[in-house]
Formats: sequence, structure tokens, C-alpha cells
Amino acid sequence: MTEPTTADRAEEDRRWMLRALAEAARGRGLVEPNPMVGAVVVRDGTRVAVGHHARFGGPHAEVVALRAAGEGARGATLYVTLEPCCHAGKTPPCTEAVIASGVSRVVAAMRDPFPLVSGGGFSRLREAGVAVESGLEGREARILNAPYLKRLATSRPFVTAKWAMTLDGKAACASGDSKWISGPRSRAIVHELRGRMDGILVGIGTAMADDPELTARPGGPRTPARVVLDPAARLPVGSKLARTAREVPVWLAVSGRAPADRLDALRGLGVEPLPFPGDGPIPIPGLLDELGRRGLTNLLVEGGGRVLGAFLDAGEVDAVEVFVAPIIEGGDHPFGPARGLGVPRMAEALRLARHEVRVVDGDVALRGHLARPWLEPADGA
Amino acid sequence: MTEPTTADRAEEDRRWMLRALAEAARGRGLVEPNPMVGAVVVRDGTRVAVGHHARFGGPHAEVVALRAAGEGARGATLYVTLEPCCHAGKTPPCTEAVIASGVSRVVAAMRDPFPLVSGGGFSRLREAGVAVESGLEGREARILNAPYLKRLATSRPFVTAKWAMTLDGKAACASGDSKWISGPRSRAIVHELRGRMDGILVGIGTAMADDPELTARPGGPRTPARVVLDPAARLPVGSKLARTAREVPVWLAVSGRAPADRLDALRGLGVEPLPFPGDGPIPIPGLLDELGRRGLTNLLVEGGGRVLGAFLDAGEVDAVEVFVAPIIEGGDHPFGPARGLGVPRMAEALRLARHEVRVVDGDVALRGHLARPWLEPADGA
Repeated sequence: MTEPTTADRAEEDRRWMLRALAEAARGRGLVEPNPMVGAVVVRDGTRVAVGHHARFGGPHAEVVALRAAGEGARGATLYVTLEPCCHAGKTPPCTEAVIASGVSRVVAAMRDPFPLVSGGGFSRLREAGVAVESGLEGREARILNAPYLKRLATSRPFVTAKWAMTLDGKAACASGDSKWISGPRSRAIVHELRGRMDGILVGIGTAMADDPELTARPGGPRTPARVVLDPAARLPVGSKLARTAREVPVWLAVSGRAPADRLDALRGLGVEPLPFPGDGPIPIPGLLDELGRRGLTNLLVEGGGRVLGAFLDAGEVDAVEVFVAPIIEGGDHPFGPARGLGVPRMAEALRLARHEVRVVDGDVALRGHLARPWLEPADGA
Repeated sequence: MTEPTTADRAEEDRRWMLRALAEAARGRGLVEPNPMVGAVVVRDGTRVAVGHHARFGGPHAEVVALRAAGEGARGATLYVTLEPCCHAGKTPPCTEAVIASGVSRVVAAMRDPFPLVSGGGFSRLREAGVAVESGLEGREARILNAPYLKRLATSRPFVTAKWAMTLDGKAACASGDSKWISGPRSRAIVHELRGRMDGILVGIGTAMADDPELTARPGGPRTPARVVLDPAARLPVGSKLARTAREVPVWLAVSGRAPADRLDALRGLGVEPLPFPGDGPIPIPGLLDELGRRGLTNLLVEGGGRVLGAFLDAGEVDAVEVFVAPIIEGGDHPFGPARGLGVPRMAEALRLARHEVRVVDGDVALRGHLARPWLEPADGA
């Protein structure tokens, strides 16, 4: 039998970490504001057990995998997508479970920047004689948990901008008509996305033009709050949003321009105003601060073009879900998906750091992450 | 041995026809204004020979394949992507070569609408006792030869519109800057496309903003004429186009607004004006009639947005090559890829009848055909 080379071992490590990342992703929409975490226990090149963090407040991935492994964990390697925690939170510290299991080596994808962990988990394991490596597939792990990382870094929710446009880049006709650009399967993907969000935001222009419900149909693991940027509180009391505000929260970001009687009428229907000082547009950073305080991890911004432009101008778009339909509209108007100030030169356009492309019933569906600081490796991986 | 079923035979026929279509496509850029044609000779389920029409004026696909097959053609089936011709053109009629070869069955993808053939080839073969079927993979064959079919139907060149845009549908910044949207590999694809064209057209706005050469680099099988929509003959005498007009033709579509002295200066450099009556915009149908008279089969329209809009408004865009770059510009301006009048409602947007999507170094490259009458099956397949 030939001794495996270092390259063989590195490739095997990588393969198991990708498996752990796939496990982690099973928690999407279920664990937030916690990170998604996956773990695989491997001994002698064979998988002994897998686990993932499956719901907020539930056991952590390492514990799930190690419990399943039992005595099989002795001398094994634990692949885990995030540094094991070393503090007692909703569950006991994972480091103690790892040490007790008899695992001899831990390979992690990244350090947990959460202040109560932040390298302390790795230190505790090393103190107990466990071999520890970190940084394997760290980029993938940071992409996976970008919403968790943004919240830790900024206290603001992660913003996914969603738009559909024609093959010539239009999000509406000159008449305002925009139904439908993308096909039924693309729209089903959007509903699936909504069901994993904590909030869905549109501008008052879109709210008045489309009278949307902004719900996930069918429902997903989460029921997102509906947020409308509406400085002057123009949301009609007869709108679907206002009429359903007692069933699913509707938050109205308003400025000093909002008339008191309109606010009273909307409050009476269950709409909650989020007041911002001044008479200008709603400040995007301040709004995101408030949404972060309210516990949102994931916010979906669905437009219209001026709202998406404002988020882009504020540097607060973290990811995009774009649907390009194989239809051509033409027309000499600015009703594209993202307006605002924009960039002065093409070389300064915002570039995606990572994206993937699918074809969905003829529509091109592009999902991508913009370059953001928390996607870069930190000290101590 | 089990007797093959009808479904087996149909599937085998289909497979050979797809092979013949792949052969046909090898003539792209080399045979125009002739159609691309491919042929496969099959006996007892085995390929005996293949052939394609490889250059304008050269032997037809059937003749190439049958010559290669020799005696192997006796009792064989000939799969051919277009009805064999029955008239003496630059080469003798293919029908006679088919009959002489001893082929017992001909399967064609489509009837040749060329007036001197138009079912006559099939009739001649049947008279001589050859079994004839037509219409197998007819849609694919019509897509392949759409430029040939459009020219026969309208005497106008087939128009491919090409554009690059950002993920938010912008073809330029508010400043006019548009370099670069798509990546080097996408731009290489455009150069490859240019090298198969008979003409490349831009508006004077693009010609003045970008000072393009509009040549294929590296060169392809064809050297397209450069056509500029320039009603007032504003093309600068110092532009790259004007300065190279003696090397590669530059045709300037001008209206009654073009000053005589400007036309004289440009003519002196080798630029050829194409005069159109009146002082309004250049009429797209009239322009295409003129380009058809000049023998163009394939015209690439590269913009800008107003020119592409005018071609769309005229219903004269037949195919598109679109590159969507993973960059976001934002900005409240109408500088999208296609302007013009456009459609009043989304439901009336022009829909692609067929398209394919590739990812090219991160750019989404979409190639498609708009629904056009000559893509529909004709009587007699």
C-alpha cells in the first residue's frame, strides 16, 4: 500500500470540508441570526457521522455530528465550517464536547468573529491537545455566512437586491407596466427566497403601482416583515399591505413630511411607522441600523429602481438575485432596475466577487455577491 | 436479432440529421450568400460518408458526400439539410448526382424555397424512384439558414444586433463612458462574429464617441463593409473609419442634410455615401433594401442605443448577441442598449424564439433568434 502524499491528504481534507459546507447550508432560513454550520466526522478516510445546525436554539453542528459518531469519534478528524464555540450560550460550549469525544484533529473553515469566540475556541482545543487547522475553504464559508458576518461587522442586515429585467435592461415600460418580465419559474424562485428573509423592502412607488402583498407564496421557514420606504406616508389604507398589516408586520419608513392624520389612519390598521428625522429621503444607513436593532439578518430589496439605486449609492447592497428575461422592450426611458446616482465611469462599476448563472425556463437567473470586507480572510483565518 | 421499431428508426434518422446539420454549420461565413448545407450517407446503420458545402461556388454537400461514398452509396440513405437542387447553377444539379449514385432514400430537413428549386428537387428524385422525406429537424435547419431564408423572403440582409450591458442594463455611464463593459473573451467572440459578417453598422454617435475601426481582429473568412448611419455626414475626416476607407469599404448612409462639401471630403478619402431622400432619419427598411442589393447576407448592428432602437422599431432585428457583465453601474439615465420607441406594454415585448446561454469568463453571453416568419415551417416542409 502506498503512503498518501501531502497533496492527496489536502485534497481529501478539501473534499470533506465541501461536504461539511453542504451540510451547513441545510440550515439556511432556519438558524438565523445564528450562522449556518456543518460538521463531518471522518476516521481512516471514512465518514463516521455528519451534522448541521438545524434550528435557532438547537444543538450546534459539531455536537450533532459527535453524538451521532459516539465512540467512532475517538482519534477521528472533525471537519467543521466554523470555529467551535467556547462559551455557554443557548447550548454548552462545543469545545468541551469536541474534547470529550476523543477527536484528535479539528479542521475548520474559518475563525468565528463573534467576540465571545474569536480564536478562543481554537485555543481551548489546542490546550487540550487537539490538533487544529483553520482556513480550509474559508472563502466558501465566508460566502455562506456573509449575512452573519455582516451583522457582526456592522449591526446591519445583509441586503440582497432582487430585480427582473428584459434582455435590453428594462424593468418597466414607459407606461410603468412591468407585468410580467420573468417567467413563472423565476417568480417561484423569488417566493422561495422571500420565505428565507427577515424583511422585504420596496419603495412607495412600487407599492402604489403594483399593490403587492410581499409575502412568500407558498410560505417558507420565515415570515418576513414588509418594509416600505414612504417618506410622506402615502401608502393607501386600502392597499393589500395596509389591509394585511395585522397578519404580517408592515413597517413604514417615514420622514418629517408624513402627515400625522395619515400616520394615525395607518397605525389604526396595524401599520408601524419607523420615523426618520428631517424632510429628505430616508437615510439608508440609518434605516439598516434600525432594522438591525429589530433583529433582521436578511433583507430583500425588491425595488423599484430609485430604491435600488439608493441602496447601491449607499454601498449597502451585498448580494443580487437578477433575472434576465429573453424579451426585448426598447424605449427611450430610464426605467432600468437600478437608478440613483450611479458611478461616473464604467471602470468604477461595482463588480461581483462571485456569481453563478442558471437558465430557468429560458430566463437567465444570476445570483452573486458583491465584494465586501467580510468576505476577505481575517487574521487567524 | 430484434427488428428495429418505428421509434428506433425515427430516432436514428434524427441522429443522422443532427450530424448533417453539424456538417452544414462548418460552412458558416464561407458559403454565403449560398445556404449552409451538410449531408451524410448511411447504409445499414453505418456512416459511409459525410460532406458539406465548404465555399461559395464550390461543390454542394450532397455531391461531396456521394463522391466520397462512391459505390457505398448504392441502396444507402442520404441525409441532407436542404432539398437537393434541380437546376444548373454554379454547379450541375445535385438531383442527377443523387440519382446516379444509387441512393435509395433521401431524408431532407427542409424544402429549398429558392424559386428554381422549391420542391422541384424532391419531385425529380421521386420521378426517378428515390424515396423522399422532408421536414426532419426542419426547425434546426431553418434556424441554421435563417440569413439565407430572410434574403430569399425579403431581399434584405439578416440583422444580428449585438450589445454589451451591465447587470443593471446599462450600455454606458451618464458621462458616455462605456469602456469596458464585457471582458476580453466576450470581446474576442465579437471579433470572431465580425469576421463572418458582410457588414457592420453603427450610428454616428457611436462612431464619434468611440472612434472604432469596426474590423475583425484577427480577421475571419469575410471582410465586412463598415456602414455608418450618419444623416448629416458628420463622420470626421480624421476618424479611423475615414482614414482606412480605402482598405476596407466605409459606406455612409446620409440624408438630404449632408453638406456637399463634407461629402466631397469624405469621398476623397474613399468613403462611399449612400444617399437617402429627405431630411429625416435614415429609413431602416430602405437602408436594408440597398444593402441587400449590394449583396450583403449578414449585417451586424453594434449600436448605439438609438440605432438599435430604430432597427427594433422597424421590426428588422432577426437575432441578438448579448453580453451581460457582472458589474453594476446604477444611474438615472436612459443609456441602455436599445432605445427608440419601444413597446407600450410588457406583454408586447419582442420574444426570442430560440436562445442559448453561455458563461464566458463571468460574462453571460446570450445568443438568440427573434420569432420571424421564415423560421416557421412552409407548405411542403
